[in-house]
Amino acid sequence: MAISNKAAPDPPDLSGFPHVIIVGGGFGGLEVARGLANKKVRVTIIDRHNFHTFLPLLYQVATAMLEPAEVAYPIRTVFGKALNVRFRHGQVRHVDHGRRVVVLGDGTELDYDHLVIATGATAAFFGIPGASQHAIPLYSLADARRLRNRLLSALEKADAVAETAPVGLNFVIVGGGPTGVETSGALSELIKTVIKRDGLRLDPTRVRVILVDMAPRLLTPFPEKASAYALKELERMGVEVEFGRSVVEVEENAIRFADGERLRVAAVIWAAGVTAAGTLASDVQEKTGPGGRVRVTPLLQIEGQTNAWAVGDSAAIPTGENGFYPQLAPVAMQSGRHVAQQILRQADGKPPLPFKFHNKGIMATIGRHAAVATLPRGLTVKGTMGWLAWLGLHLWYLVGFRNKLRVMINWTWRYFDWPSGPRLIVADAETAD
Amino acid sequence: MAISNKAAPDPPDLSGFPHVIIVGGGFGGLEVARGLANKKVRVTIIDRHNFHTFLPLLYQVATAMLEPAEVAYPIRTVFGKALNVRFRHGQVRHVDHGRRVVVLGDGTELDYDHLVIATGATAAFFGIPGASQHAIPLYSLADARRLRNRLLSALEKADAVAETAPVGLNFVIVGGGPTGVETSGALSELIKTVIKRDGLRLDPTRVRVILVDMAPRLLTPFPEKASAYALKELERMGVEVEFGRSVVEVEENAIRFADGERLRVAAVIWAAGVTAAGTLASDVQEKTGPGGRVRVTPLLQIEGQTNAWAVGDSAAIPTGENGFYPQLAPVAMQSGRHVAQQILRQADGKPPLPFKFHNKGIMATIGRHAAVATLPRGLTVKGTMGWLAWLGLHLWYLVGFRNKLRVMINWTWRYFDWPSGPRLIVADAETAD
Repeated sequence: MAISNKAAPDPPDLSGFPHVIIVGGGFGGLEVARGLANKKVRVTIIDRHNFHTFLPLLYQVATAMLEPAEVAYPIRTVFGKALNVRFRHGQVRHVDHGRRVVVLGDGTELDYDHLVIATGATAAFFGIPGASQHAIPLYSLADARRLRNRLLSALEKADAVAETAPVGLNFVIVGGGPTGVETSGALSELIKTVIKRDGLRLDPTRVRVILVDMAPRLLTPFPEKASAYALKELERMGVEVEFGRSVVEVEENAIRFADGERLRVAAVIWAAGVTAAGTLASDVQEKTGPGGRVRVTPLLQIEGQTNAWAVGDSAAIPTGENGFYPQLAPVAMQSGRHVAQQILRQADGKPPLPFKFHNKGIMATIGRHAAVATLPRGLTVKGTMGWLAWLGLHLWYLVGFRNKLRVMINWTWRYFDWPSGPRLIVADAETAD
Repeated sequence: MAISNKAAPDPPDLSGFPHVIIVGGGFGGLEVARGLANKKVRVTIIDRHNFHTFLPLLYQVATAMLEPAEVAYPIRTVFGKALNVRFRHGQVRHVDHGRRVVVLGDGTELDYDHLVIATGATAAFFGIPGASQHAIPLYSLADARRLRNRLLSALEKADAVAETAPVGLNFVIVGGGPTGVETSGALSELIKTVIKRDGLRLDPTRVRVILVDMAPRLLTPFPEKASAYALKELERMGVEVEFGRSVVEVEENAIRFADGERLRVAAVIWAAGVTAAGTLASDVQEKTGPGGRVRVTPLLQIEGQTNAWAVGDSAAIPTGENGFYPQLAPVAMQSGRHVAQQILRQADGKPPLPFKFHNKGIMATIGRHAAVATLPRGLTVKGTMGWLAWLGLHLWYLVGFRNKLRVMINWTWRYFDWPSGPRLIVADAETAD
């Protein structure tokens, strides 16, 4: 006897519809698929993870405030009711646009009528020796878990020897953009908690969280007022912020700066910049755009093509003013929606429209009760108001009602009983000594 | 400027109190420490994980019903308010009871006045070739995550090729005790869900969940009536149950039985039996007990010692009727409490008392709405009543109010919207092809 005699309902016959392959299930790719759900196209999303990751909250997973499942959502579940959207778990190795096929890691070839590259971004290490091996970026759930294990293990190790030899612990965050600011604030709060709640015998004056940046201020895309506020808040929380410092090497337990200083570290967190992920850009064009991105026209088509598109962090989208849009979630989502609309317009025989980004502002959180948001006309909201706006916006965009509910419960809990996430060191491999 | 100028409050001076080292933070070890919290002893719990794992619910993590953080609880958080209990993250490599020291993996030596071995059990593979490499047991959070990834990845792979070549998928569970019964029932429900909810194009008649056991019935510690009920329920759920079958080899993608059959499998789940974990038993006695356990007196002392104890699954505790108590959570908890009491009696100059186990019954769940519980006088509760009793008991014993609340919310949610856990394939290493 087998499990069940009920098969899934037979899918409707979509064989006459054009087939759209979307490579990547991040903010951009998901919006393309959403825009095409239940329309007259067949859609396949391919991703090497079977879930969408809500990247803006990865730093909270890394600092043990949220659990991995709270910032990840299975892609199949998102499109469970859209019979024309299929998910394929795998990695795209190569695109042959001449033959209109993508080649997966296991050698399988899938044909398409439209291709959308939405492979996102990954950490840029700028060729700095040791950085890719020893510094931990925050671009995937695996990164976040690795960083959490590293941080908590470093604190456990320091506690274990604290009786006999008081140790100093340095955590260095490289990069003063939103990720660096958010992570250093959260890490500082994690350390205070661990010392106070978990009774670790660390000398708090010897545990340092150091944020370094080459630039002379934090959050460079924000107005100066917001940068000054972020600096003041971080310093109030005990984060040491050092400007004008560039990293020349990362070792297993140390970091070296251009000025010659070598600092022993428990962890280096890499938030210094991004580059396009994967190598598909060079499959579809000879001369890729800045940061390895796919160079697209204002229509978001790959130059010279009408059925190959790129969105989000993997695309170099011209602003029309000699520049490109920044690699931010709102650009990814809006460009994804735009491409879905153009594919449908094309199917209806209508001409494509150019992409126009609607800037609704940018925001970063610094700690409990402190965030900055900069609205389009330069208006800056900060403090508790900024923080509430940040909470609301992130909850709104989190995929899935269940995840929204869980994260809301966690945040509320933390607000009253700060901070209470389970500080688990969970590795796949079972090793400890 | 450093993180904070506030150190943890100075611990009270406990230097004159005896030092109790507890090796292992499972059910047994945790109860010893609880019994000694805020008493006139110094306690150190050593564990290679920084959390306590609620083993009875691991199969729900493996089948994507609960998240890892819901069945794990940081040991430091349990004893946050007990200033005489300390946690040490590490693995004990060796005990030198002559010198009264435990030696950690990193070489550190810790002195003790009392030693409690509470290292628990691990899967027994009985020397069957390939079993330890290719079969997946369910004895740690890492096992559960590994099994979940294996199950979900197998379903994804089958779906990917389903269009061109309909594939059969076999999942084999070895062992018809509570773990085998619970896991096969949950796995069967997971597969139905994945096919129905996530739209996987698998032919449900070709996906088999097979539970094999050498014995002629399920749940041998239970009365025959309970075994028959479990069998009927599992078969109703589509699980194939095969008795009198013994495994002679496990290969990477196959299993071989004594009768010569070789079956291709997507996963083999090993629930065939347990053996004492670790090698400390042979450090403290020449002739260890059955299953590698520490042989103890009815006082739970290691023979010939008054300050070395063993509890739970790592101890062979005589019943007084020529046998030993089974390796079950209630025995672990009660023996742990007993040892804490005896250590305190000894400190007060009172003679130790023999351990007496109070059997409050055993239970196993088979699926939604179906469980069996057998109470001491042979009374058997089954069906929805058994299931509700199972839910209540497991919630009661789950460590931490927050975990109880989260699991209760998950179970309630699942009751109305079955089953809705996030089916994430999350590995530490980032590989997919």
